[in-house]
Amino acid sequence: MKKFINAPENFVDETLEGIVLAHPDQLKLHETNKRVVLRTEEKEAGKVAIVTGGGSGHLPLFLGYVGRGMADGCAVGNVFASPSAAAMADAIRACDRGAGVICLFGNYGGDKMNFKMACEDVEFDDIKTELVIAGDDVLSAPKGEEEKRRGVAGILYGYKIAGACAERGDDIKTTAEITRSALNDIRTIGFATSPCIIPEVGKPSFSIKEDEIEVGMGIHGEKGIGVRKMMTADQVAEFAVEQIMSDMPVEPGSEVSVMVNGLGATPKEELYIVFRRVANMLKDKKISIFMPHVGEFATSMEMAGLSISIFRLNEERKALLRADARTPFYTNYNL
Amino acid sequence: MKKFINAPENFVDETLEGIVLAHPDQLKLHETNKRVVLRTEEKEAGKVAIVTGGGSGHLPLFLGYVGRGMADGCAVGNVFASPSAAAMADAIRACDRGAGVICLFGNYGGDKMNFKMACEDVEFDDIKTELVIAGDDVLSAPKGEEEKRRGVAGILYGYKIAGACAERGDDIKTTAEITRSALNDIRTIGFATSPCIIPEVGKPSFSIKEDEIEVGMGIHGEKGIGVRKMMTADQVAEFAVEQIMSDMPVEPGSEVSVMVNGLGATPKEELYIVFRRVANMLKDKKISIFMPHVGEFATSMEMAGLSISIFRLNEERKALLRADARTPFYTNYNL
Repeated sequence: MKKFINAPENFVDETLEGIVLAHPDQLKLHETNKRVVLRTEEKEAGKVAIVTGGGSGHLPLFLGYVGRGMADGCAVGNVFASPSAAAMADAIRACDRGAGVICLFGNYGGDKMNFKMACEDVEFDDIKTELVIAGDDVLSAPKGEEEKRRGVAGILYGYKIAGACAERGDDIKTTAEITRSALNDIRTIGFATSPCIIPEVGKPSFSIKEDEIEVGMGIHGEKGIGVRKMMTADQVAEFAVEQIMSDMPVEPGSEVSVMVNGLGATPKEELYIVFRRVANMLKDKKISIFMPHVGEFATSMEMAGLSISIFRLNEERKALLRADARTPFYTNYNL
Repeated sequence: MKKFINAPENFVDETLEGIVLAHPDQLKLHETNKRVVLRTEEKEAGKVAIVTGGGSGHLPLFLGYVGRGMADGCAVGNVFASPSAAAMADAIRACDRGAGVICLFGNYGGDKMNFKMACEDVEFDDIKTELVIAGDDVLSAPKGEEEKRRGVAGILYGYKIAGACAERGDDIKTTAEITRSALNDIRTIGFATSPCIIPEVGKPSFSIKEDEIEVGMGIHGEKGIGVRKMMTADQVAEFAVEQIMSDMPVEPGSEVSVMVNGLGATPKEELYIVFRRVANMLKDKKISIFMPHVGEFATSMEMAGLSISIFRLNEERKALLRADARTPFYTNYNL
């Protein structure tokens, strides 16, 4: 294992120390819980707060989207492991500005159980909460069993939508409803060509042959629908767009946002080659692309691979996507 | 070779097509030269233009810094190869707004020769040019032979400084002088732990053993000062800071910007672990950090590794660094 780390058991804490040293104007650690990251500049009183949480190893997910116009706080777990319910409750208490807290996170057993416990815990402090769960990974469960699907890169759009609702003053029920409805219209498919190594484990989580690609893989290395012979960039784009659209039809004349997300080791050049084919396919289908996202938004350490997401838009969602946001890893200004 | 590509010989052209499809409001291809990338929104007449160029495979370098407040155009070469003099001349002609063009690029033989030819060529069109060359890679040549040093990630600061000078209305001589002086105060050291594969070559450019790290390596895999046993994140930070400061002293009480740049496959978490130690070392030395940059700014395809840069600041440089900029890969707003 060759990593730029010190003791593997300090990986997460040292990452967090580095992040708050680099972005002190934007992020800070919770005063008593060093596994909770908060906005330095607090949200105005009376606005709904957005709290998230998840395992480490996915930067910019999850804490990288804490900032103006997106999330207000994040509970941070060990690499690929759920944060504690205590960290989640500390994040919720620190972020509540009197209007309640949306807990927005990916559909994983540990995160769900802990967020539920945290929400029960903060009820004693009279803090209203709503669970909003992202499950955009199409191939992780068949149609009809959408509630079993894992949350992957599409959650970025969830932060953007929920954060913008909260900023414009929507109440907690409205923010939760609009975000849930948006998440229902996001689909993602992932492809991996090499594994990653969890620092405390020290060896790869799986192996893929030199001429093979894992299709439908999750961001923790969860198996997808199987291994195939290595595909070209165009084949990857075509497979993803067809699979997504057979699960979630997109009408000609409509608008979508597209995300091509690098999982870690894949060069940005390759992400744009894949995006090129997605864009040309959608053009042929008379579907327009609004605010495409190409880059690293949800990674899996140094895994090679990428995911493709499609988000069905309407006028309200476009306005929410377009709204100002500023976090260390995501900036969106309308100037 | 497992890459998300189609035919290797189309790698660069398809990347460029994807980039302009993703960012049509910001970037466009030159009308007749598809290896020249230009700002969609042209700079005002009468302002100095900044043109850059270099090989592909380094995104965001070089074309990713074309945009408001940074570069105006970029000539694009094949992977790790200089662009043609013709592409450079086309970029210069397209970008000149009557006040002359700064050609800002890294210190490599091919780029230098071709930019000189391009500048001679555009003299016939009465376009004034100035060559400004980045050579921040400390370990690529010893002290006293600074003119032989390669340009690496530090050129990002060069774009920011030159672009901000041009935006505020400095003339070509002043812009060139301020940028050259800034580049003289930037030092970088790179570390690599795994190689990358050029698509048209199809095999790794070099090999490193499982317990070794290459110290002082360039962004095309040029050898550094040799191979060492794998170092911890703290050792990497300490080695870089000490080497840089023995080459370029930084006084207690002064301010610097620090960049920890990922070369491709190294997770962002690790960049922050390294930044943490750099920040703590500088604090001990009573040196303050202004606008640190942690992320991928100059890559080498899927190479694993990182570089550390230090840029000595003064009040003018701080103002220029802080100035607004907007490119697909670099956004800096003062709100």
